[in-house]
Amino acid sequence: MSYEQSYLYKLRHSAAHLMAQAVTELYPSAKLSIGPPIENGFYYDIDFESPLKEEDLEKIENKMRELSNLKEPIVCRPAKDKEEAKKVILDETTNGQGPENALYKLQLLEAIPDGDAVTFYEQRATDKQGKEHAFIDLCRGPHVENTSEIKNFKLLNLAGAYWRGDVKNKQLTRIYGTAFETKDELEAYLHNLEEAKKRDHRVLGRELGLFMFSPRVGTGLPLWLPKGATLRHVMTDFLQKEQVKRGYEPVVTPHIANIKLYEKSGHIQTYRDKMFPFMEDEEKETYILKPMNCPFHIEIYQSQLRSYRDLPVRYAEFGTVHRYEQSGEVTGILRARGFTQDDAHLFVTPEQLQDEFIGVVDLMQTVLAKLGLKDFRARVGTKDPGSDKYVGHDENWVAATKAIMDACDVMKLEYEVSPGDAAFYGPKLDLMIKDALGREWQMGTVQVDYNLPERFELEYIGEDSKPHRPIMIHRAPFGSLERMIALMTEQYAGAFPFWLAPVQVAVLPIADRHNESAQQLADRLRDSVYDTRALRVEVDDRRETLGKKIRENQRHKVPFMLVLGDRDIEAGTVGVRHRERGDLGAMPLADCLKMILEEPDTTSDPA
Amino acid sequence: MSYEQSYLYKLRHSAAHLMAQAVTELYPSAKLSIGPPIENGFYYDIDFESPLKEEDLEKIENKMRELSNLKEPIVCRPAKDKEEAKKVILDETTNGQGPENALYKLQLLEAIPDGDAVTFYEQRATDKQGKEHAFIDLCRGPHVENTSEIKNFKLLNLAGAYWRGDVKNKQLTRIYGTAFETKDELEAYLHNLEEAKKRDHRVLGRELGLFMFSPRVGTGLPLWLPKGATLRHVMTDFLQKEQVKRGYEPVVTPHIANIKLYEKSGHIQTYRDKMFPFMEDEEKETYILKPMNCPFHIEIYQSQLRSYRDLPVRYAEFGTVHRYEQSGEVTGILRARGFTQDDAHLFVTPEQLQDEFIGVVDLMQTVLAKLGLKDFRARVGTKDPGSDKYVGHDENWVAATKAIMDACDVMKLEYEVSPGDAAFYGPKLDLMIKDALGREWQMGTVQVDYNLPERFELEYIGEDSKPHRPIMIHRAPFGSLERMIALMTEQYAGAFPFWLAPVQVAVLPIADRHNESAQQLADRLRDSVYDTRALRVEVDDRRETLGKKIRENQRHKVPFMLVLGDRDIEAGTVGVRHRERGDLGAMPLADCLKMILEEPDTTSDPA
Repeated sequence: MSYEQSYLYKLRHSAAHLMAQAVTELYPSAKLSIGPPIENGFYYDIDFESPLKEEDLEKIENKMRELSNLKEPIVCRPAKDKEEAKKVILDETTNGQGPENALYKLQLLEAIPDGDAVTFYEQRATDKQGKEHAFIDLCRGPHVENTSEIKNFKLLNLAGAYWRGDVKNKQLTRIYGTAFETKDELEAYLHNLEEAKKRDHRVLGRELGLFMFSPRVGTGLPLWLPKGATLRHVMTDFLQKEQVKRGYEPVVTPHIANIKLYEKSGHIQTYRDKMFPFMEDEEKETYILKPMNCPFHIEIYQSQLRSYRDLPVRYAEFGTVHRYEQSGEVTGILRARGFTQDDAHLFVTPEQLQDEFIGVVDLMQTVLAKLGLKDFRARVGTKDPGSDKYVGHDENWVAATKAIMDACDVMKLEYEVSPGDAAFYGPKLDLMIKDALGREWQMGTVQVDYNLPERFELEYIGEDSKPHRPIMIHRAPFGSLERMIALMTEQYAGAFPFWLAPVQVAVLPIADRHNESAQQLADRLRDSVYDTRALRVEVDDRRETLGKKIRENQRHKVPFMLVLGDRDIEAGTVGVRHRERGDLGAMPLADCLKMILEEPDTTSDPA
Repeated sequence: MSYEQSYLYKLRHSAAHLMAQAVTELYPSAKLSIGPPIENGFYYDIDFESPLKEEDLEKIENKMRELSNLKEPIVCRPAKDKEEAKKVILDETTNGQGPENALYKLQLLEAIPDGDAVTFYEQRATDKQGKEHAFIDLCRGPHVENTSEIKNFKLLNLAGAYWRGDVKNKQLTRIYGTAFETKDELEAYLHNLEEAKKRDHRVLGRELGLFMFSPRVGTGLPLWLPKGATLRHVMTDFLQKEQVKRGYEPVVTPHIANIKLYEKSGHIQTYRDKMFPFMEDEEKETYILKPMNCPFHIEIYQSQLRSYRDLPVRYAEFGTVHRYEQSGEVTGILRARGFTQDDAHLFVTPEQLQDEFIGVVDLMQTVLAKLGLKDFRARVGTKDPGSDKYVGHDENWVAATKAIMDACDVMKLEYEVSPGDAAFYGPKLDLMIKDALGREWQMGTVQVDYNLPERFELEYIGEDSKPHRPIMIHRAPFGSLERMIALMTEQYAGAFPFWLAPVQVAVLPIADRHNESAQQLADRLRDSVYDTRALRVEVDDRRETLGKKIRENQRHKVPFMLVLGDRDIEAGTVGVRHRERGDLGAMPLADCLKMILEEPDTTSDPA
């Protein structure tokens, strides 16, 4: 049974009504618009006369509880036609405020096609003081039977929302809330929300010195601070080496291109909304900030004659692309306007398609395992038959979709199909990762594309000495570096796996006189002969107490802290602290080195 | 004595006149404009009735030789005033073609301030047939005494040039030539030119698979092919490690910024000509493609309170910037519109300035030594007192210029001063590298800047607990990756030093049956246990003859070729060829590995 058919869905829908009833009792002049259930709860968009504050939510919650206790039956009241419905709205839902109060509801009614059924849901009861409480809302339903079923709810926060999602309309106040069937479920959810707040990558990103934003630079354009830049480098270095092993070749392409390239690729026609304004000037040529890397890799493929013996060609690039997301949709580095895809394009023969597709999924699984992300599912995004936003012939779409599903079958990879989630040039396989808090993130992607090769008239000379058309695979195991770092930050609450930690070891001299020894120890660790990997080591020689140094390095989730004092220097030992295992006591340097180098790549399950 | 005062300068100036005389005899309708000596020769811009071809140059040269043999004395003929000069031009220089022929000369005369001396230079002689040859040109001189002195000359090529350098004017034909005092000098120069043509990075870049251009992507926007991308990676990896050792911290910043950032930095006011068109759109904010990285690093510096104990702060980034060079000025990757600076900005206290400046120059010298570039000189670029393109107070300019010169003195680094070569925000030290053909390239740069810290009101808290203003050092040891790769390609004619070679070892199986062993050998080399550096190895398993494989890998300047056949596989040996030392015969694998790992970083002097 889908969520939309579940009792929980009805419960949340009814909770939205209950909230609306409470609001109209507390703020008679408030104008209601819409109030649907959503993935983890519900909301209602309301036009208040004076702005609501977060503090007001408790008052509304209390009123909801009162109304729930009145055990109002919730009943469906069909209207004969739109004319009758209009009368109900104006007579019974304006709260005595005149017709202006029904502004949004009348527009909603207007949008219902003539002849369609129109229904209201009504809840009504009398309290001990004999006062009647009633609430009637234009609504398709369904709902639970009685407001007394709505017991385990919580109002969460406020946001702005334009009427009908159009920035030209008035901004309404959206009140978010949630409801569950049981108290335990509600509490678990609220706990997870609290936990998610603590793990919010935007907060941790700043606190751990990963990245920052600046209003002068612009919305959704992160500046990577030294520790974040290091993290990026470690991640790209790992993936690059893994890719070279698997026969990928690196390329580097420009951040902009002449408008001609995107006319040819079809981006101008299908992707313009998401693009930054063009660089146009009377005297100069017109350039476009690249929203995707593919056309560049195609230009490289096309720059020389290809034979079937040269294929597969696999071009990989950490390519920074820009997409003009609405400012309301920009969320830290999770959804930024500039981000770096771990992009690659494979040009393959039809015979190679399945093996290469499987090879890509294998690489993606290797990457996720290395990152410690074990819980994921596959989703095949196909064309929405009702939309015209796609390019290419139907038979290409059919072939590409079949190729993906066949490969999944060969790999025994279960997937679900999601119509409308294809790229504009072809279907795709997405990996959806469930994080430590049970939230799902869409990350890596593989796309099979017959269409761009056709648009660009790509060819290779087959064994038959005749020209053939290659198929393209687009893929990104991380998805984007920014998105993956956001996920990893929240997944591990900043305690990155050892191999990723921007600082792996902090050396803490107890007093100034130990600074020199600390530097020597740090240098020795950096050039460790025990291992070819160079450790990332910092000396914390600030004039602070040892306690403060330990607390701060712990807050920064540094895996190892090595404390150096007089006795250590004399005895050739070091005091070792581990971010999870705590104080491990003094040990000889050699033992400490061995322990650090044996630290496993991934931490224990952080959940 | 400067070049401008030398006999060679006069000789080349006279050669330009001799060429003009030859042209007017061969093409009576040609209209002369200007014909100065330049760094390595001379040119004359001429308005031809029908277009000149490269083949015509020989004819002009032959005529020049005839005229030189006539031993025409060259004499100066002063004019009393501009009126008289105009008469000379119309009566004696129009070649019987009417006043229109003197179009450009009359404009040049017009531009001479009234009262200034106006002179002509005249050369005249009668040939054996009794025909008189005469040439008179409006000219400041000086010249050699007789055309017979112009013996060692060569016309080189044609180019288009707008009259007065203005694209709105007519495009004239520029004929380039050169002249020397001795035949040997001329021949050495022409040999170098030939050599330079062979080494042209645009030709080699394509041939070696380093980079390409595409008209659909745009002028001056290179696409880096796998071998070029590898070369970039090796270079940045080397510099990054060197920088981390020296206390630099990596940062990564966006490719674009809101216009506000560049209003604050002053780029909008002083740098607009060089910028790409802005990204403007009614509904979206205005963004600018970054022409420089500095404002971003400043934003990062400014994002937290800094104490004197935090300084120096050194932020490093391989930052891709875009500058809209005129399409006529774009030259391969030497002068591109998009390029990657090995940029860094140091924020220092006044007390740290000298040491940090010296540290930067030391790093630059380390980098040049690693690249095998030993022949360079230093140039201090200062403010052009006559220009208003600079920002900041005079006392800041004085202090910054003094800091650079003082540091050079401490380092005993000789320099020359070049007024007008400063950045718009401060003076700089440039390293000018002389390449294997004796040509000079402006590469690495260090700039001392008091002005941007002032514009952005940067601060640090001093030991006195009061706010102070830091000084910025801008620096780029390569200058730009693209420019340095252009230089390295031409310097080494594509035979990059071993550590830089995109492919260091090519394994050449003799027949298909040796392919598997070849792959095994390649894998063994890649994971060499002899050294931590991973070798870059390719197997050339194309179905081609061994001879062809060797020739092609030699053409690609691969340092080592390892040939594998039946006898080798049986005996555990490999046939070794070195790109410079040729066939080294068969040797046991272990010896071969040892030889490869002992290959010095830089090749012997390529000149």
